[in-house]
Amino acid sequence: MPEGQKIRIAVNGYGVIGKRVAGAVARQQDMSMIGVSDVVTDWRARMVTKNGLSLFGATPEHVGAMRAAGLEVAGTLDELLGQVDVVVDCTPKHIAAKNIDLYRRRGLKFIVQGGEKHSTTGHSFVAESNCVSALDREATRVVSCNTTSIVRTLTALKRAGLLQRARGTLLRRATDPWESHESGIMNTLVPEPEIPSHQGPDAQTVDPGLDVVTMAVKVPETLAHLHYWSVQMTRPAGKEEVLDAFRTSSRIAFISMSEGLVALNAVKELMADLGRPHANLYEVALWADMLRVQDDELFYAYMVDNQAIVIPETIDAIRALIGELREGAESIAMTNAALGVGGSLIGAGVGEPVRR
Amino acid sequence: MPEGQKIRIAVNGYGVIGKRVAGAVARQQDMSMIGVSDVVTDWRARMVTKNGLSLFGATPEHVGAMRAAGLEVAGTLDELLGQVDVVVDCTPKHIAAKNIDLYRRRGLKFIVQGGEKHSTTGHSFVAESNCVSALDREATRVVSCNTTSIVRTLTALKRAGLLQRARGTLLRRATDPWESHESGIMNTLVPEPEIPSHQGPDAQTVDPGLDVVTMAVKVPETLAHLHYWSVQMTRPAGKEEVLDAFRTSSRIAFISMSEGLVALNAVKELMADLGRPHANLYEVALWADMLRVQDDELFYAYMVDNQAIVIPETIDAIRALIGELREGAESIAMTNAALGVGGSLIGAGVGEPVRR
Amino acid sequence: MPEGQKIRIAVNGYGVIGKRVAGAVARQQDMSMIGVSDVVTDWRARMVTKNGLSLFGATPEHVGAMRAAGLEVAGTLDELLGQVDVVVDCTPKHIAAKNIDLYRRRGLKFIVQGGEKHSTTGHSFVAESNCVSALDREATRVVSCNTTSIVRTLTALKRAGLLQRARGTLLRRATDPWESHESGIMNTLVPEPEIPSHQGPDAQTVDPGLDVVTMAVKVPETLAHLHYWSVQMTRPAGKEEVLDAFRTSSRIAFISMSEGLVALNAVKELMADLGRPHANLYEVALWADMLRVQDDELFYAYMVDNQAIVIPETIDAIRALIGELREGAESIAMTNAALGVGGSLIGAGVGEPVRR
Amino acid sequence: MPEGQKIRIAVNGYGVIGKRVAGAVARQQDMSMIGVSDVVTDWRARMVTKNGLSLFGATPEHVGAMRAAGLEVAGTLDELLGQVDVVVDCTPKHIAAKNIDLYRRRGLKFIVQGGEKHSTTGHSFVAESNCVSALDREATRVVSCNTTSIVRTLTALKRAGLLQRARGTLLRRATDPWESHESGIMNTLVPEPEIPSHQGPDAQTVDPGLDVVTMAVKVPETLAHLHYWSVQMTRPAGKEEVLDAFRTSSRIAFISMSEGLVALNAVKELMADLGRPHANLYEVALWADMLRVQDDELFYAYMVDNQAIVIPETIDAIRALIGELREGAESIAMTNAALGVGGSLIGAGVGEPVRR
Repeated sequence: MPEGQKIRIAVNGYGVIGKRVAGAVARQQDMSMIGVSDVVTDWRARMVTKNGLSLFGATPEHVGAMRAAGLEVAGTLDELLGQVDVVVDCTPKHIAAKNIDLYRRRGLKFIVQGGEKHSTTGHSFVAESNCVSALDREATRVVSCNTTSIVRTLTALKRAGLLQRARGTLLRRATDPWESHESGIMNTLVPEPEIPSHQGPDAQTVDPGLDVVTMAVKVPETLAHLHYWSVQMTRPAGKEEVLDAFRTSSRIAFISMSEGLVALNAVKELMADLGRPHANLYEVALWADMLRVQDDELFYAYMVDNQAIVIPETIDAIRALIGELREGAESIAMTNAALGVGGSLIGAGVGEPVRR
Repeated sequence: MPEGQKIRIAVNGYGVIGKRVAGAVARQQDMSMIGVSDVVTDWRARMVTKNGLSLFGATPEHVGAMRAAGLEVAGTLDELLGQVDVVVDCTPKHIAAKNIDLYRRRGLKFIVQGGEKHSTTGHSFVAESNCVSALDREATRVVSCNTTSIVRTLTALKRAGLLQRARGTLLRRATDPWESHESGIMNTLVPEPEIPSHQGPDAQTVDPGLDVVTMAVKVPETLAHLHYWSVQMTRPAGKEEVLDAFRTSSRIAFISMSEGLVALNAVKELMADLGRPHANLYEVALWADMLRVQDDELFYAYMVDNQAIVIPETIDAIRALIGELREGAESIAMTNAALGVGGSLIGAGVGEPVRR
Repeated sequence: MPEGQKIRIAVNGYGVIGKRVAGAVARQQDMSMIGVSDVVTDWRARMVTKNGLSLFGATPEHVGAMRAAGLEVAGTLDELLGQVDVVVDCTPKHIAAKNIDLYRRRGLKFIVQGGEKHSTTGHSFVAESNCVSALDREATRVVSCNTTSIVRTLTALKRAGLLQRARGTLLRRATDPWESHESGIMNTLVPEPEIPSHQGPDAQTVDPGLDVVTMAVKVPETLAHLHYWSVQMTRPAGKEEVLDAFRTSSRIAFISMSEGLVALNAVKELMADLGRPHANLYEVALWADMLRVQDDELFYAYMVDNQAIVIPETIDAIRALIGELREGAESIAMTNAALGVGGSLIGAGVGEPVRR
Repeated sequence: MPEGQKIRIAVNGYGVIGKRVAGAVARQQDMSMIGVSDVVTDWRARMVTKNGLSLFGATPEHVGAMRAAGLEVAGTLDELLGQVDVVVDCTPKHIAAKNIDLYRRRGLKFIVQGGEKHSTTGHSFVAESNCVSALDREATRVVSCNTTSIVRTLTALKRAGLLQRARGTLLRRATDPWESHESGIMNTLVPEPEIPSHQGPDAQTVDPGLDVVTMAVKVPETLAHLHYWSVQMTRPAGKEEVLDAFRTSSRIAFISMSEGLVALNAVKELMADLGRPHANLYEVALWADMLRVQDDELFYAYMVDNQAIVIPETIDAIRALIGELREGAESIAMTNAALGVGGSLIGAGVGEPVRR
């Protein structure tokens, strides 16, 4: 990249992830949000231009349909791709796999989401774990919301030399709010048919050294996932030592029952009160006062905003592919500053267990 | 009020309504948000100062408890009241009734919410209906979310000479998101035991001339209320004539099924996409393409954001009590501009039924 | 039918309706439940034989798959049809339309469900309204749960000369419990896009003289539908007169708020306590104390168990097609006795508004 | 007890547990259901006599109120207690503690439910674990639904010498269906504030030798609890060996994903199809095909019907206190036969993992 020039970004797919990525890119000083491509012609597409972004159609046919619906369209996806350095694919699961050829023909760097297979890019990304190995690559995959949270937390324990093996139960929100009128589950719980569920092995695509087994179940709510962990540590440790390990991650935020943050809805309301767009919780929100150490065992729970948690990782992944910054920490700090990530959610020093 | 001086406001109670009122007051050029009073000491109180407002405790005891919890407190409610022109009471239902003596002793103008009785202030307020009758009064009551929507819509029909009588079925959200971990209903519907429900008579406290009967039922969702209406018009009318009547209100926004806004969750997502704080829907969101005229009968449905719809009314009520502006329309225009209310939600001319 | 011989019945499709029909047929003294046909091979099919019924496969291929799964299969649907007088089609929506040719080739009398069009049989059935016109016919359609409840209640008002026009808002349960793990809506309300919704016109396929308009909305619960009605009567009437009109139907059961039956879940629990299979509510459960008369207007609400309400109608429809009994009332009485329908749900004389 | 004489039982409290206990007692050949005591006067009380049982009022005042409501009342609780050998207390949490003095003064044997403390009786009961230690006691506590399931399953593993330690995550239904109109949580998850949750220590009141830690979370559904377990075994074992261990319990029923029993709602529907009263699932329903063994670790999940699982235990507890039968297995077999417990839920040999 010529010095001082901004990284030019296209977002393909303006869904729950795409619109958040586009908004986050627009907040980065070193990036320029060139345009968004999509296929729909209703209110969702209108939000692209309403939010000041350029709208492109996936094909000439889509462009035609969009214009017929009164949308202001800047051109086709193909034309958009001609103007950017990196494309972030946020199309629905398994569709990205078909787009990759297009990106490659264009010689573009690209990012796919966690719904795609590791093999589509050969690299799976979580900023605090393996940013460096993504430097200058053609492409990477930002792993799913669940996997991102797992790698963030277990990497923190591993860095502190505490992690032997981790066994988790994952409560997955059943559908996203924007499509909760056409899909979902009602008054039931739906276990993943297989144990282990795929998230454990998926975390190993980022860090093959993690000894992790997950079980997963769909629950009838739309707000966020909730993880419960039972960790065998390498040795007995104190609670403060464990909290200190988690504190080394800027993307794990402590919350506490004693501050009234007693359920998913309360934490989500906090995000809205903080004025975050879409009430995004980018962090793993981990209950610090609930966390329990029992000899060499560790038990804790945290909340994962499945719509938001991968957004900072995606921004870091963009920078890694471009390779201007050689240290993950630099990118992480830039991203965090732009998105308001890091530090206490409710005020310095409050809501944390008292140090003893 | 001395010319050029801003109206000084206190908000008593920082709950779902109070925090929205405080945020809306802060956006008005002619108002100054002096401080917020509350009784809690947890994350909810921390949001007051986090959002740049001054926090007061309801009593010296509350101030003490807040300081013990590490909160920065500016003083007591009593001290706050000494610095303002108008206090907006947003305390929980029926508590305001006890605060009124305090406000009166202070010689303050005050506003109570729809949970209180009409008799507490002797005046019930909906901006487009009876703003003028509130001018210079000591106090008014901003009616409830449901009643506000009823008066807005029926007033529009009445202005056009179309309204004979209206019969409505009101689907009420069961609890607010922020407290949905401790109250609510599950997988059931709970009819109000009495027909008519109280909303019809309540609308008559604003406009005694309305012939309106309501039936209400609690439904297991937290997003918004939904009203269905069957209206006997004074005469047969065309659909466009009815839509034109609704168009005379700047606080009724048309939405349409054909634009994909097919359910409460989709409309709420739209508000988040528009970047509105708390994804507030201040307008009555009325489905224009679903609306049906059959001879002299009219059928339609709309969505009511129970947390947000009364916010613009509250702002107008403040101005009415102060009496600087003598025309409701002026205040309404100022409030709308400050909050982004008015005009099409998704783009000029789109999402409306085609004129024939 | 030779005297003393039982009507031989096949049920095609063992879903929520089919299994209830099969169970109800088995309780009729004048009917013989010959067999059930289906296409699935899992636990649902196992319930057929577990409940003592004969299981048939829709095709030889299905029979093969069922046997491979260890199911005891009596033969094919075709073989089943050779042994019966009437087939009740309970296959999913729109599939019955394809089966009709098969039934006709066999010279069988048949019944389809409300998901099919009126034109498939040319006759739509609700026992208390038009039983006589179904006598000796080849086929009829038992209308949907919602429509059945509408015709039952409005027919009662019409018989008493009270009905001018009826306007209803229908809250529809979003999915059935047994499939609530794979479909549904979550924390939202989904209006039917069109007003009027189809139930009004559908009621007119049974009784063209009904002046009825309906609006419908899907709600996030699985238990039952709930209807709210606003009726213009032909003249002012007293509440007792209206209740007496409803009392002429043995399939409208009064419930009351004052007895604690304050929501759908409570009524459903009552059905379970009564020991009814599947906690079936065959009646329209109408809140008698909530019902309100205001001059010549009438307002009321009732609950409709969408899985159960059509079961007694289906039994009566079978008898009507066979034509042995020439009076609807005779069949209704037989069906009611066999299913425990009729009389007070909670005890004679209790739970009803006091007569004045 | 004189030979041939039935054990005479009173049930105090006709709620979700009480009504099931009363129904189950009525099915036992060696027991006589003398009467039920309660305090309410609405439909719930009417079900007592509707179901052929005698109704008593908790106090003379309650008797008066019941009679005023038209209920047929046989007398007071005190009078009821004079006619029985054992009273099963099914009053709401913490109320039983106050009743105990009354029972003791009467010299009655009594059973309290899991909501009470262990110390109220000094003995906590799960039939397959410690039936013998309850023989001839004055009283015992049937532990809660969650604890019952934990003890049943871990006892089976322990008997086989496989259990070292067990770590569980418990998803708790938020409220019971019959009161879901007045309590519950909506679209959120509510973690228990403390780790470990109380169920682990509670299991140790039955078997102090269990090394068990539990974490619990309230989920927004009403059907049943769902447990996920991660067990450290004493040694590597095969899956069949583990299944065989569970097969030694007649109150653990295998279900399987491959049979379509893929979620709580499907299993509950199965219970309704089986014709069980209230669709009761008395067994721990454990997914056999989902269960996973990995070296010396074991992972599995099961469903717990919180309204029904303690019913067979309560019946066995009655017999233990009376002491006529000296072997737990005899009582368990009698109870199982009377309630239809034991054997495959859907047919012999089906729905089980293939033996290899």
